[in-house]
Amino acid sequence: MKSKSNQDYDGLVTLAWQDNSVIMIDQTRLPNKLVYRKLRNYTEVADAIKKLRIRGAPAIGVAGAMGLALACIKSSSANKNELIVDLQHAYDILLSTRPTAVNLFWALERIMKVARKGKRVKEIQDTVVREVNKMAEEDIWINRKMGKIGSGLFKNGETVMTHCNAGSLATVGFGTALGVIRAVRESGKSINVIATETRPVLQGSRLTAFELQHDGIDVTLVPDTGVGVLMAKGIIKRIIVGADRILRTGHVFNKVGTYQIATLARVHKIPFYVAAPLSTFDLKSRAEDVVIEERDSKEVTTMVGRRIAPKGIRIFNPAFDVTPPHLISTIVTEKGLLKQPLSESIRNIFKLPMIS
Amino acid sequence: MKSKSNQDYDGLVTLAWQDNSVIMIDQTRLPNKLVYRKLRNYTEVADAIKKLRIRGAPAIGVAGAMGLALACIKSSSANKNELIVDLQHAYDILLSTRPTAVNLFWALERIMKVARKGKRVKEIQDTVVREVNKMAEEDIWINRKMGKIGSGLFKNGETVMTHCNAGSLATVGFGTALGVIRAVRESGKSINVIATETRPVLQGSRLTAFELQHDGIDVTLVPDTGVGVLMAKGIIKRIIVGADRILRTGHVFNKVGTYQIATLARVHKIPFYVAAPLSTFDLKSRAEDVVIEERDSKEVTTMVGRRIAPKGIRIFNPAFDVTPPHLISTIVTEKGLLKQPLSESIRNIFKLPMIS
Repeated sequence: MKSKSNQDYDGLVTLAWQDNSVIMIDQTRLPNKLVYRKLRNYTEVADAIKKLRIRGAPAIGVAGAMGLALACIKSSSANKNELIVDLQHAYDILLSTRPTAVNLFWALERIMKVARKGKRVKEIQDTVVREVNKMAEEDIWINRKMGKIGSGLFKNGETVMTHCNAGSLATVGFGTALGVIRAVRESGKSINVIATETRPVLQGSRLTAFELQHDGIDVTLVPDTGVGVLMAKGIIKRIIVGADRILRTGHVFNKVGTYQIATLARVHKIPFYVAAPLSTFDLKSRAEDVVIEERDSKEVTTMVGRRIAPKGIRIFNPAFDVTPPHLISTIVTEKGLLKQPLSESIRNIFKLPMIS
Repeated sequence: MKSKSNQDYDGLVTLAWQDNSVIMIDQTRLPNKLVYRKLRNYTEVADAIKKLRIRGAPAIGVAGAMGLALACIKSSSANKNELIVDLQHAYDILLSTRPTAVNLFWALERIMKVARKGKRVKEIQDTVVREVNKMAEEDIWINRKMGKIGSGLFKNGETVMTHCNAGSLATVGFGTALGVIRAVRESGKSINVIATETRPVLQGSRLTAFELQHDGIDVTLVPDTGVGVLMAKGIIKRIIVGADRILRTGHVFNKVGTYQIATLARVHKIPFYVAAPLSTFDLKSRAEDVVIEERDSKEVTTMVGRRIAPKGIRIFNPAFDVTPPHLISTIVTEKGLLKQPLSESIRNIFKLPMIS
């Protein structure tokens, strides 16, 4: 599947709007099979997000928006008011699928705003479909922009670590953290990637290893227990990850395990970068208000359907953790690098007033 | 299966000498099935060690010794010299199974020494069989002793973390780190255990969770990526692990992931303990001389026979890592607690001369 308007991007495209349907890679089938699914209504989209068939903050955002667009074109409402009621219902269901990533909220809001502006049903449907196509294109464009900006942080021949999957498969295409890695290579520098497995869902093994191998980028997979050894050996020169939500204080919510990698990076004096579009920023919440999704214990107790832990065992399985700003060297955005002090850089980029 | 002479120990017994055979739990079948295997010759023992049917430094030591005892009683040699040649051959094969744990070397040496002292074949065979039974009894006795000594480090009601499996299943019975945890409970204090999964072989999920649940000790399983979150939340009060080899400098070789847990513990000001019998100490080697076993990449790329990473992906899969002495609060041994500075405490307990 190719992206329509990003003619210069020929990598994996994770999701697209096609013939009034959403086409997306079923990521639960990777790395063994590259399967595309066609989703025809918003409940299928909500289900795909819940079951991690599609995941990664930016991808979830666009998928959610496309789900809302499906609700919009499938609505049998006779007028705008009825349509908005239908959309609000779909909005609530789509938003409830994953509580931590903020891009989903951002993307659904963007569609609702467009819908509210329209007057007649047909007109709103057309505008909403145009908007989701625009969002998909923008996503790749933003990732390429972040890539260009972030690639300057890397030197030729370095070995860098990434956690989870912040790649093509976490976005519409190109990726955030892996987009920067792709851009490093496009700039003519060689780069070697260490991908962590990322238990329990193994996004590193299944997705990051898959897509870097797919693009011919050098990649080595390591269990999450091997991170410290590689740092102690001096092999890892830099770390770059994505984000599910960034607060105005610079606190970064990302896949569980990010916090300990950032902490270990600090001890070993390794720069730690986060790559995320501005749609990942939540300028309102405080760290203690963000809901960290606790996922099904089966993710930990079973593997490909077989039990790997005793029955009845208690499990702690948070999907995300929070990395405080002092552990982060730089945040890469499509509008530039955010440096320390992060809260000040964030205030400047969003032109926010001082918080007293 | 009960231990013969440790009448007061009624927990799991991992291996025993019975009717001229070695009986051991097949740990690759846990947690789904508790299966005992009967091994009749030393090559079966070597194979069981290689395939991790039995693992854990003290258990590997006694298993190796029992393997050598099987070679001894099965030998058709006519005289002592021929018998020693047979034993030396079995010794080499048994020693080559796992390069990092030092208890295996220690245990095999102990049997060879006993064998060399004897005169006639029958006499040597009898003494060797007596010796392996004695070693199995001693192992439980030493673990109980460590438990009593180590339990004083814990307060009532604390939540503690352990990594990998340093329990009954890593020893003949009772365990080293989990032995201390058992002793804490026997002393009347309540204790809650957080067990890390311990990728890639999942000794935490499959073994530690199994044996603590078996003994009715409160246990919660967490992916290796969740260690930092739990520390940041202030939940973990202490950490205790076993060891595969400890040097006179206090460097501890243990399951991969130990080093990063110890590093994170230091950042979060959490005491980090190691429980290991004196047979785990290697007073000769320097840290850079110790071979760290790199295991088959299939441990990382497949799970219960199914691929979980793309074909042809490069894997970094060291079985162990090294934790430097400054990260270790206390080492628990059967002869007492070794405190900082560790190299001095180790010198004192082994009555070693100063190193210039």
